[in-house]
Amino acid sequence: MDIYQLGEFGLIDEIKKKFPCKNDSSLIGIGDDAGVINFRGKDTVVSSDMLIEGVHFDLTYFPIKHLGYKSVIVNLSDIYSMNAIPSQIILNIAVSSKFRSDTILEFYEGVKIACDEYNIDLLGGDTSSSISGMTISCTALGSIEEKKIVRRNGAKANDVICVSGDLGRSYVGLRILQREKSNFIKDPKNQPNLEKYKNIIEKQLRPKARGDIIDHFLKNDVIPNSMIDISDGLSSDLMHLSDSSNLGFKIFEEKLPISNDVMTTAKELEIDYLSSVLNGGEEYELLFSLSPEDFKKIENESLIPIGFFTKNSNKILVNNDGSEDELKSFGWKHFS
Amino acid sequence: MDIYQLGEFGLIDEIKKKFPCKNDSSLIGIGDDAGVINFRGKDTVVSSDMLIEGVHFDLTYFPIKHLGYKSVIVNLSDIYSMNAIPSQIILNIAVSSKFRSDTILEFYEGVKIACDEYNIDLLGGDTSSSISGMTISCTALGSIEEKKIVRRNGAKANDVICVSGDLGRSYVGLRILQREKSNFIKDPKNQPNLEKYKNIIEKQLRPKARGDIIDHFLKNDVIPNSMIDISDGLSSDLMHLSDSSNLGFKIFEEKLPISNDVMTTAKELEIDYLSSVLNGGEEYELLFSLSPEDFKKIENESLIPIGFFTKNSNKILVNNDGSEDELKSFGWKHFS
Repeated sequence: MDIYQLGEFGLIDEIKKKFPCKNDSSLIGIGDDAGVINFRGKDTVVSSDMLIEGVHFDLTYFPIKHLGYKSVIVNLSDIYSMNAIPSQIILNIAVSSKFRSDTILEFYEGVKIACDEYNIDLLGGDTSSSISGMTISCTALGSIEEKKIVRRNGAKANDVICVSGDLGRSYVGLRILQREKSNFIKDPKNQPNLEKYKNIIEKQLRPKARGDIIDHFLKNDVIPNSMIDISDGLSSDLMHLSDSSNLGFKIFEEKLPISNDVMTTAKELEIDYLSSVLNGGEEYELLFSLSPEDFKKIENESLIPIGFFTKNSNKILVNNDGSEDELKSFGWKHFS
Repeated sequence: MDIYQLGEFGLIDEIKKKFPCKNDSSLIGIGDDAGVINFRGKDTVVSSDMLIEGVHFDLTYFPIKHLGYKSVIVNLSDIYSMNAIPSQIILNIAVSSKFRSDTILEFYEGVKIACDEYNIDLLGGDTSSSISGMTISCTALGSIEEKKIVRRNGAKANDVICVSGDLGRSYVGLRILQREKSNFIKDPKNQPNLEKYKNIIEKQLRPKARGDIIDHFLKNDVIPNSMIDISDGLSSDLMHLSDSSNLGFKIFEEKLPISNDVMTTAKELEIDYLSSVLNGGEEYELLFSLSPEDFKKIENESLIPIGFFTKNSNKILVNNDGSEDELKSFGWKHFS
């Protein structure tokens, strides 16, 4: 059945059935003009992102269920990076007439998996037609006690800079998917065998939002001094922290968490693995800074120290041979 | 300067400067991963809409500043229709490379005018590139005491059904704009003279969100039993109220508020004025129901009674000659 047969209201009914509210804070969900939430005295945290076919994703190699999943994750990650707990989303999508309604419902299957994993309620949204392609706009809401909010601008000199996981897989995974697409276009007999790239492609198609890190902070009563999620790339996002906080930093190549997959696949692709690690976007790992005391207090394998903030404004990468480079941001600036 | 020269971060800086927060409830605005709001014990109300070039608007006759304005209004209207007061928006836009950065800033000029008029803070959003055309996704947040929330499903039999203003102008105005566009395409010497249609076109290009009605309710301590804003059309939205509330209704043609402009312009366009009034969308008037006692208590010229809800499920339009028709929804279903 195509989307025109099911109709907007039919589609909304289907979606509504799949998404009963599970959070006490969700007072009114899908089906009215607006959703209503009671955060019981906490602050409301809200973030929104847009994903556009042909710009942010390519449905020829991005399974639509994964896209639904990732659309949610991207926004939850922004809420976590304020040290808050997400609990609701609002999802707007626009699709052209070429989309079948079961494709849309598959998209929502992915949305549902993410919502279930992270205990999120879908509160509503807008379903619309587009001239061509698919556009997704997701808004996530969460809550936090005011004194626990973590911003980009709170880093202190000597803070330990940490990331929550290894870097580079998402970008290298994307490059593999693009290569396989172009091989397939050249000759449709070239069926991709992606088994050996499973680990890196998974990071691109099915990233995690690191709520476990926020739980770890809350459980141990530690509040980072600054935090951001890595969506543009380590360099670019670290500069957001240092610039907002009027600090410099020193990070160490030898400390950067890089999986073997990234090394070998970068070599195969003839791209620089270090650049993939420094400038690859869509990681959705958390990048944060802790006082040395707090770091010691809650140290574990998910808090990977890569350097520290400095009073002077130099942005230094210390290479494995001991030489130093001024780090530059190449980030994923969508307009450059 | 085109958008690629200014860059995403340059654009965000420009926007940030124009939108300092003015509400006490806005704790963190543009510039971090998420906005943070403190509604001080009230409930959070949230709504989101998407507007797509070629589907919801046509930039050949829709001035971009008005588009910025209307993008905000559409969402504020949804918050008001819950009987809540909007205070923040998050705005995502995607534009193709053909857009100049001053065009985008003009769009934000319109956003700013709406924000200033309605005392709204822009808390952030995503600025992205698109393959073609412009897509806008706006999320509005507001607040309300839980016991004052008004839903679609609370209407009672014998409630007086009211609208907040005259109907039909938005649709007829759209038809005039479309006619002038097609005349211009046929012969570019056909410069449109829209002066005589000013009143109807204004409703299409620069609708109001009826916060004044909510103020009137609050000031007089009256809570409507049901409410919705007319975005799909009177018929369609009235059916949302009656279906959610398991009621029927009787409305009277002679009570429908119709301006002379709509009558004369519909005649000129050879379209049915009554159908424009019943089925024309994008009105952003509030449609609500009050107990007869409450209606009497707060009656004024902005509360226009058009009929009442009934226990039986018949949906009746009483024509001027006394005959009755079953009302059908033709609404603006985007997929039909």
